[in-house]
Amino acid sequence: MEKSSVNPWEVSGNVDYDRIVREFGVQKIDDSLLKRFEKIAGESHFMIRRGIYFAHRDLNWLLDQYEKGNKFFLYTGRGPSGKMHLGHLIPFVFCKWLQDVFGVELWIQFTDDEKFLFKQNMTLEEIQKNMHDNMMDVIALGFDPKKTHFLVDTKHAGIMYPEAIKVAKKLTYSMIRSSFGMDESSNVGQIFFTSMQAVPAFLPSVLKNKKMPCLIPHAIDQDPHFRLTRDILPKLGYPKPASIQCSFLPPLHGTDGKMSSSEEMGAIFTTDSPKDVENKIKKYAFSGGRDTLEEHRRHGGNPDVDISYQYLKYFFESNDSELGKIHRKYKSGEMTSGELKQITIDKINEFLKEHQKRRKTAEKQIEKFIYKT
Amino acid sequence: MEKSSVNPWEVSGNVDYDRIVREFGVQKIDDSLLKRFEKIAGESHFMIRRGIYFAHRDLNWLLDQYEKGNKFFLYTGRGPSGKMHLGHLIPFVFCKWLQDVFGVELWIQFTDDEKFLFKQNMTLEEIQKNMHDNMMDVIALGFDPKKTHFLVDTKHAGIMYPEAIKVAKKLTYSMIRSSFGMDESSNVGQIFFTSMQAVPAFLPSVLKNKKMPCLIPHAIDQDPHFRLTRDILPKLGYPKPASIQCSFLPPLHGTDGKMSSSEEMGAIFTTDSPKDVENKIKKYAFSGGRDTLEEHRRHGGNPDVDISYQYLKYFFESNDSELGKIHRKYKSGEMTSGELKQITIDKINEFLKEHQKRRKTAEKQIEKFIYKT
Repeated sequence: MEKSSVNPWEVSGNVDYDRIVREFGVQKIDDSLLKRFEKIAGESHFMIRRGIYFAHRDLNWLLDQYEKGNKFFLYTGRGPSGKMHLGHLIPFVFCKWLQDVFGVELWIQFTDDEKFLFKQNMTLEEIQKNMHDNMMDVIALGFDPKKTHFLVDTKHAGIMYPEAIKVAKKLTYSMIRSSFGMDESSNVGQIFFTSMQAVPAFLPSVLKNKKMPCLIPHAIDQDPHFRLTRDILPKLGYPKPASIQCSFLPPLHGTDGKMSSSEEMGAIFTTDSPKDVENKIKKYAFSGGRDTLEEHRRHGGNPDVDISYQYLKYFFESNDSELGKIHRKYKSGEMTSGELKQITIDKINEFLKEHQKRRKTAEKQIEKFIYKT
Repeated sequence: MEKSSVNPWEVSGNVDYDRIVREFGVQKIDDSLLKRFEKIAGESHFMIRRGIYFAHRDLNWLLDQYEKGNKFFLYTGRGPSGKMHLGHLIPFVFCKWLQDVFGVELWIQFTDDEKFLFKQNMTLEEIQKNMHDNMMDVIALGFDPKKTHFLVDTKHAGIMYPEAIKVAKKLTYSMIRSSFGMDESSNVGQIFFTSMQAVPAFLPSVLKNKKMPCLIPHAIDQDPHFRLTRDILPKLGYPKPASIQCSFLPPLHGTDGKMSSSEEMGAIFTTDSPKDVENKIKKYAFSGGRDTLEEHRRHGGNPDVDISYQYLKYFFESNDSELGKIHRKYKSGEMTSGELKQITIDKINEFLKEHQKRRKTAEKQIEKFIYKT
């Protein structure tokens, strides 16, 4: 099996999620936790029901706190290194649902400093231009500006850096080296950075002078940051943040790695036209179908490796019975790859048409979302 | 000879300034540079005339720029780890003179983050309390609030951190390790910190959108920071800052090391009473005198190791002919150690009386000095 790699700056190979659960020390979300979660939430979300959000830390504790009336806040983030693709939207779609069903505040960190420090050839200005564009995508998902706050690392450094140094004082170079694989040639901003990423997990408690539980929904590759955050926050007098981890939306060319902005042909961007989407799915989306129509009809397709099917499962077909029907028909050979691709193209374009319309009006709202110090 | 150590966090042993000049790669201030400097300044200052400021980098270049009408700004700093002693005042006294004779702006950085990161058992609140107190000492020296700006690393992080990451991106762990002796157990804030110390050397150029020369007067132990700053600023499009280095005011107990706040009995603080000063000089100030009065009259004292004499030379007797008289009389045995100590006590107390009076009214002025973003 191909070697795989999962860390905040690289996801490649065939990701073995069971191995990650063991190695990262997260807990799988089992049936009883899922039931409890859905009961308290009052409804179910397909992303957790289908195991796209598959692991957690301290979710039971968080629910205990919630039941005692101790409301949590949500924290997630975006590293604005480029334009956003469908994979980037997953944590935001899930956060939007969490915000709605639990009625909680959401803090979104934009790590412009991180991307500047890790992208050798990008200027801060380029990154901030991306960030502006990314904010439009986030807002287009329909967040409530009264309960949603954008934190920009450079813009909010005035409130973040004084807290980040409290984290930094508890983090040695040796801890960073072993968590992130830093070395002698790493720049000192990269070495410091996780201190900034820890801050939104307790900043709302600082600002409101009240210790509140925190839930961090994030893609599993970010876990090394939050493992350190969890070790350190109790030393600063704050509770360990709970977290919930999702797997990666696969790239067009197959189920290895994750959708990545650095491959134009591996990703569908939020600004792609209907024609772009059609071309990309038709030309590049890896198919689980057979080589000939005859073979396909006889033996059926494999939805597990079929990217079009995976996109429906991860994002675009929230109705389980509809998805089940597609699964059955495709697996039996009744549905061809071409038909499956067309369903996916239509679903994505339906979503993007609405998203792009909302994106246009989102720009005017940015200022409302940026946290006012 | 005892081993000596000179770096931003330790000064100990018998400091060999010639060796430091070679090892640090600074230039000695020679007679022709001194003459040129005094000619352009329009007057002379005893600290540079007497070699207390003994070394520099690019001072000739700075004077060239000044003569072309390209005014520099001054940058110095204070690490607020405790109350201030006489040794701490030296760079500020010299900066005050530079500001007056050249008519330039002065930026003073208060590195509360640094002290928090390097002092294991101090909280940020304790350090900020010291800082408030230290600001009163600085203001008491008579700076012009229109031309003097305080930068507080945590308070001004909003404008400093976005610039610090530009420095950090050019600084590897390996460079920091070899410049400051960091290791696996260093915290990541310590590793990052020099990026913040570099910022005031170009921040005024950023804020005014105009590239200005910078002169940094500082005690020689801070040179490793500014060596790195000089390497990096041209890569960011700014000129290398010029610098001018002073030697250390010795502690009461002898000419090894530097006056340090961590030894209550080695330092004279700005808040000491006349009685404190008298006791400290009489009891602890190392004397270059002989064991008996008879021997002293016959062989004379040694002003080079006599701490009272050194304090007069470094700070309290600005008149060369007066100082020369004391030197001659003490060396010949005409003046006793007791008499020399009394002169020093009187001079220090005369200074502190005025300083403490000004300190009282300084508190109300702090806000005027803090840079408004």
